[in-house]
Amino acid sequence: MIPRYSRPEMAALWSPETRYQIWLEIETAATEAMAELGIVPEEAAKAVRERGGFDVARIDEVEREVRHDVIAFLTSLAEHVGPEARFVHQGLTSSDVLDTCLAVQLTRAADLLLADLDGLLDALRRRAFEHKMTPCIGRSHGIHAEPTTFGLKMAQAYAEFSRARTRLEAARADVATCAISGAVGTFANIDPQVEERVAQKLGLTPEPISTQVIPRDRHAMFFATLGVIASSVERLATEIRHLQRTEVGEAEEYFASGQKGSSAMPHKRNPVLTENLTGLARVVRGYVTPAMEDVALWHERDISHSSVERMIGPDATVTLDFALTRLTGVIDGLVVYPERMRQNLEATGGLVYSQQVLLALTKAGAARDDAYRMVQRNAMRAWHGEGGFKDNLLADAEVTAVLPPEMIDDLFSLDHHLAHVDTIFARVFGEA
Amino acid sequence: MIPRYSRPEMAALWSPETRYQIWLEIETAATEAMAELGIVPEEAAKAVRERGGFDVARIDEVEREVRHDVIAFLTSLAEHVGPEARFVHQGLTSSDVLDTCLAVQLTRAADLLLADLDGLLDALRRRAFEHKMTPCIGRSHGIHAEPTTFGLKMAQAYAEFSRARTRLEAARADVATCAISGAVGTFANIDPQVEERVAQKLGLTPEPISTQVIPRDRHAMFFATLGVIASSVERLATEIRHLQRTEVGEAEEYFASGQKGSSAMPHKRNPVLTENLTGLARVVRGYVTPAMEDVALWHERDISHSSVERMIGPDATVTLDFALTRLTGVIDGLVVYPERMRQNLEATGGLVYSQQVLLALTKAGAARDDAYRMVQRNAMRAWHGEGGFKDNLLADAEVTAVLPPEMIDDLFSLDHHLAHVDTIFARVFGEA
Amino acid sequence: MIPRYSRPEMAALWSPETRYQIWLEIETAATEAMAELGIVPEEAAKAVRERGGFDVARIDEVEREVRHDVIAFLTSLAEHVGPEARFVHQGLTSSDVLDTCLAVQLTRAADLLLADLDGLLDALRRRAFEHKMTPCIGRSHGIHAEPTTFGLKMAQAYAEFSRARTRLEAARADVATCAISGAVGTFANIDPQVEERVAQKLGLTPEPISTQVIPRDRHAMFFATLGVIASSVERLATEIRHLQRTEVGEAEEYFASGQKGSSAMPHKRNPVLTENLTGLARVVRGYVTPAMEDVALWHERDISHSSVERMIGPDATVTLDFALTRLTGVIDGLVVYPERMRQNLEATGGLVYSQQVLLALTKAGAARDDAYRMVQRNAMRAWHGEGGFKDNLLADAEVTAVLPPEMIDDLFSLDHHLAHVDTIFARVFGEA
Amino acid sequence: MIPRYSRPEMAALWSPETRYQIWLEIETAATEAMAELGIVPEEAAKAVRERGGFDVARIDEVEREVRHDVIAFLTSLAEHVGPEARFVHQGLTSSDVLDTCLAVQLTRAADLLLADLDGLLDALRRRAFEHKMTPCIGRSHGIHAEPTTFGLKMAQAYAEFSRARTRLEAARADVATCAISGAVGTFANIDPQVEERVAQKLGLTPEPISTQVIPRDRHAMFFATLGVIASSVERLATEIRHLQRTEVGEAEEYFASGQKGSSAMPHKRNPVLTENLTGLARVVRGYVTPAMEDVALWHERDISHSSVERMIGPDATVTLDFALTRLTGVIDGLVVYPERMRQNLEATGGLVYSQQVLLALTKAGAARDDAYRMVQRNAMRAWHGEGGFKDNLLADAEVTAVLPPEMIDDLFSLDHHLAHVDTIFARVFGEA
Repeated sequence: MIPRYSRPEMAALWSPETRYQIWLEIETAATEAMAELGIVPEEAAKAVRERGGFDVARIDEVEREVRHDVIAFLTSLAEHVGPEARFVHQGLTSSDVLDTCLAVQLTRAADLLLADLDGLLDALRRRAFEHKMTPCIGRSHGIHAEPTTFGLKMAQAYAEFSRARTRLEAARADVATCAISGAVGTFANIDPQVEERVAQKLGLTPEPISTQVIPRDRHAMFFATLGVIASSVERLATEIRHLQRTEVGEAEEYFASGQKGSSAMPHKRNPVLTENLTGLARVVRGYVTPAMEDVALWHERDISHSSVERMIGPDATVTLDFALTRLTGVIDGLVVYPERMRQNLEATGGLVYSQQVLLALTKAGAARDDAYRMVQRNAMRAWHGEGGFKDNLLADAEVTAVLPPEMIDDLFSLDHHLAHVDTIFARVFGEA
Repeated sequence: MIPRYSRPEMAALWSPETRYQIWLEIETAATEAMAELGIVPEEAAKAVRERGGFDVARIDEVEREVRHDVIAFLTSLAEHVGPEARFVHQGLTSSDVLDTCLAVQLTRAADLLLADLDGLLDALRRRAFEHKMTPCIGRSHGIHAEPTTFGLKMAQAYAEFSRARTRLEAARADVATCAISGAVGTFANIDPQVEERVAQKLGLTPEPISTQVIPRDRHAMFFATLGVIASSVERLATEIRHLQRTEVGEAEEYFASGQKGSSAMPHKRNPVLTENLTGLARVVRGYVTPAMEDVALWHERDISHSSVERMIGPDATVTLDFALTRLTGVIDGLVVYPERMRQNLEATGGLVYSQQVLLALTKAGAARDDAYRMVQRNAMRAWHGEGGFKDNLLADAEVTAVLPPEMIDDLFSLDHHLAHVDTIFARVFGEA
Repeated sequence: MIPRYSRPEMAALWSPETRYQIWLEIETAATEAMAELGIVPEEAAKAVRERGGFDVARIDEVEREVRHDVIAFLTSLAEHVGPEARFVHQGLTSSDVLDTCLAVQLTRAADLLLADLDGLLDALRRRAFEHKMTPCIGRSHGIHAEPTTFGLKMAQAYAEFSRARTRLEAARADVATCAISGAVGTFANIDPQVEERVAQKLGLTPEPISTQVIPRDRHAMFFATLGVIASSVERLATEIRHLQRTEVGEAEEYFASGQKGSSAMPHKRNPVLTENLTGLARVVRGYVTPAMEDVALWHERDISHSSVERMIGPDATVTLDFALTRLTGVIDGLVVYPERMRQNLEATGGLVYSQQVLLALTKAGAARDDAYRMVQRNAMRAWHGEGGFKDNLLADAEVTAVLPPEMIDDLFSLDHHLAHVDTIFARVFGEA
Repeated sequence: MIPRYSRPEMAALWSPETRYQIWLEIETAATEAMAELGIVPEEAAKAVRERGGFDVARIDEVEREVRHDVIAFLTSLAEHVGPEARFVHQGLTSSDVLDTCLAVQLTRAADLLLADLDGLLDALRRRAFEHKMTPCIGRSHGIHAEPTTFGLKMAQAYAEFSRARTRLEAARADVATCAISGAVGTFANIDPQVEERVAQKLGLTPEPISTQVIPRDRHAMFFATLGVIASSVERLATEIRHLQRTEVGEAEEYFASGQKGSSAMPHKRNPVLTENLTGLARVVRGYVTPAMEDVALWHERDISHSSVERMIGPDATVTLDFALTRLTGVIDGLVVYPERMRQNLEATGGLVYSQQVLLALTKAGAARDDAYRMVQRNAMRAWHGEGGFKDNLLADAEVTAVLPPEMIDDLFSLDHHLAHVDTIFARVFGEA
């Protein structure tokens, strides 16, 4: 998490102020619940609700002495609340506060990321329909294969980020639990109903069984899901980087007036945003393994996960938030060049229709293997600059013995390739 | 995937024979669907259904020449089917076969893993109820904290592997798609209905939009999920390793008669199975990042994912299958020592009840900070061997000024700690 | 990199001010070299040397417009230098400045880390010699094996961090190169002698062949090395966590007066520093794979590495620096309990000498397999509380038929185990 | 490690036969050393030297009973050697045999990989000199930047794999240690001189301090180094994949006659080998983190590293060996198209010389910022198809006011870009 790759709302979620504010919400909710259950006096709940507060500088000061952040916070809180503060945190451990706070932070972070995904999906849908029938060459292995459309590329990304959304919702649910279960999670000094009530107030569900800490397989799943989403960001970014290559030139990141591409080479317009996204994806993926290594805490808990989460909690969510919105901007502003797409499509002189020819030959009775050889022979000649592919076929007696020239001519057409675009759009968007 | 850590059923899923058999199922289903739709003659479907077959040695031979496994397979298939073979694979690409095959393999692997998890859950449930009220010390940071029960440890693992099961079901659904969409996924030469029918026959759903390949975010999510499950294996294995330490001695892996722990030290009984599981968890986690790196294929597809999947497909599923069943065996046979648990629980002379004392002091009117100091003072003396904790408290005038001796005595009891075990069991198992 | 886990000197290395200061050093050195070679007027070198400077706020302002940090810096620099500024950066690309700057930052970071390692090695050596002959039980698989000494544990760590030092020196050399080679690295507009002179002034070596960027395999090796060192930190931290377990109690992190171990359980003294180090090790390891993914830049360069390095450059070095100094503090202050070590050593009633017995039996003529069975039989009885190991042996007629009782008695001694401590110390420290 | 990606010599290194053979060498060397030192009778050394042997099936059989591979091996060995076998393995632990064996395997694997690197370096050197002056466009961000040569691309790779070689030598030295130090590494029952003599016989150095196991930071460094080398493989593979793209067409993997690129599209010639290498690089990198996680074994040792190493030992070395030799074959057979390189170089109508113009303008007195604007203005027009870059400049009065037309003409030349190729070659190869 560095300012260059941070957006304010997500970054604020991880500030000390926000953390202490959430702690206050948790302690208040817990005290209220205990008052409702008759465990502490109603005055205690009233006191913390009305006078509850904290002072960040004071917390820092106390923490330097006691080296324990929750105790430092409770000290500051007590200085605001007064003597009723002794009923606050009763039967809780620090982990009850810390882990429930992390659950609140991660679910809020997930909500921001879900909104990011919605924005990205909107942009992808718009560009997909805009270019639904804009033909371009499909490439496998970087080599021209058969025609597709630019809209289909966007539709693929739409489908992929729809899956990302579904996964993120599941990951959000996985971390949305509340633990107010006391030392080693036995509720020895706290009524389980307190946990249920706090959970409800915070929009969480009670952790069925905690061991002082909420189990870290939940968090591992959360960060792993962010890693998969980051990988989808990398995929779309890589596609744009390829399309912007000088030799391809089919699309280009929007280049602001005044922007300089290179200090040395003034003509350059580089896909720097998508390259940046490629790097950010690597970074977000890098947090997955540490999160998985956090799962195997010792016995009921150790605190090795804490330093990891203090770093990757903000780092992963802030960076992915930044990446998703940057990607949305790239898609929204992407300059698309249909004319260049058409030129590239035609650059191999019809080789991209070779499969049509192959299938027509077999349908007309040629053995598959014979057909393959006939097509490859003429394709290879064309590839090496010896005539166009169609002309070569028309001049090949073995071919024309099977397929009459007029049928060969019909095979060199986009119609087949665009025939099912509507079907695919209907599958992806529910409409075509 | 090495024989030492493989079980036959899962290993067989990744044999060449199984792969070709699934290819045959796919080609047969596709030809049948095309026959039903009137695209190829009914005789073609009949021929491939009745005479369809392959010869592994022959496929190997052809592949050495053409360097393309699907073409080699089709050659062998054609040699079984005869002239109608020219209708087989019509409009398909190799990827249609390969990716749909991988979907079948991964869903079958998931089914085996789900069965493994069911076995593990059964074992955990059994041991949890067996030791529901077997008290033992709960430890945070490896340090005695407060009492819990061995049944709660098993219940925690049960809850964790229940989550693993839910996640694996989601991951299974993520990879259970079928693509029969032809070159670059446009259905240029294949009716989308063929895909739907093949999907149905194979128990898959049609991939909404493929690009010759099924998008690899699906597989990344699958392998990431295996990595999280492996991390849960590591957690439970680590717990057992800790419990078996000489100084702890609360549980022990079953040690077969005739087994030798050490070639040099004949008295040793080592937790080698759970150490082994710890290592296997590392290995399975190691496959997560390569799977994520596979997502960003170039344009409509490149084949860089293939070598990764040929290795980690078997490696991850076979190893996790082995690990889960080994872990089930460890839990099933685990030798538990309740007497030693009781000894350890009492080893600190009642320090584990310090929080009870702290809470009683605050309830009786002491300021939280004062109470904390009173408890810590007497606890630290006991920790350093100066008297027992209870005796120290009883001898501390500041303490007894707040709490009468008979109340102090009542605090040193397991009752509080076991009071909510039933509540937790009801949450985890639906019954207590 | 978060303040909680940062030390000022390392953090400062990554501030914008430091970065711009190094850029200024590079541009100044390059201009001077060009002046010496007669490429630019001597006045240009004089101007930049005497008036060269920058203004961070101004750079930020310009960067918001041009979206290019080096151009923004050069603008600010030009405003300080005046018209001679047009000779600055001549023939250079941004990457020449950025990559050489990164080389300076990483080598300075390496120097700080090397100093950290020296501090840690000093502490380890001191504690090793202090406890050279303090006997304790050696454990394999967490199970008592045979006696060793606490000094040997420290010596092992000393040897391991000595290797870390050697590796870090190699990694430092790997990144200590300078590139001033212009666009795509051909020196088209810059004399290669400029690079050589700048390298010399900055304490670097010229990159033999750059492609606008310094190749990223160098950086991958650097971060991989940090990951291995972090893993060694984890090993030593894990050792201490184990030794501090309640049941083991052989060593303890220094616990400051006033420090609170738990908000709920006042008696607790937890190994929180070493648990924290365990987490930090995970974090540092997490940066290794992103750094490796940076290696395969496209063609002569893309900028995907940049966002990665902006994050992991500071994160990895600052976190490891913090971890190493924290570990040094832990070792320096570690409270060691030789008496408890002795108690643990004797806790199994002599079982730890079982190998001595085994070897004595075979030396006295028993077949290895027979000897093994004799020892295991008596060891297992002792393990299950049926008599002491030595007494069992003395009562076993098959044993005493081979070994006379007085020989058995001699075998239960530490002498054998401490006999070669000096030899090992001499190997590790060059003195015993 | 799967047959498809294995070469026989490396695979054989990891067979059970080889492992047992190395164990035999170790036990023989240890027994001989003990005989030389007078610890065991000379007859014992003679017996094991002359009759030492093993039977794999027999070892398997015994291991099924005792569940301990070294004990099983020793049983089989004893059946060959006879009664003197009781002197074999005296004072050793299994780990002495296992870890020293792993050292032998890893150093032999390193030797094979070093030979692979030598082959690759030879191929790169040959192609570098062959195309030293073959001009092609250098690309940054996938966008045409400035001219370079294909020889320089090869020279860069040569320099990178030379570094790989140096790193692998260091990594080899790191794992080339021998431990014959007995339980917990104290030499309690074995003379340290035995270790020294065995080390010498096996070409290893004695481990200065082992703890029953050789410390795993050594192995972590080894596998991390393989991961960095794999990343360099990915870089070169990615370069070739880019060059083979249809729109680029500057180089192509050798395509065997008879090979089929696509079952559906007969014209396709895909860079499948380099895509395959890209995937293999991901796989090898995936083994790095498990190896690092192995470092923090518990106390003197646990066996969690073993399952990891049984898998990644063969997997990482066999896969990298295969990848390096495949890459060598790709480089050796790479079909290079200088004519197409020339066409691409000229495709942007001289834009690639924009920096020359920029520098000439500033040298002729224009302010840097003014010059930048003049160049960018004319470059952008050309980029959008409005005239050629040179013509635009010649028609721009502000430009020609600074630079006379004939000077502009001179700037559009390769001379500058090729001027220092010899210098760079001399740096990389020691000759030009």
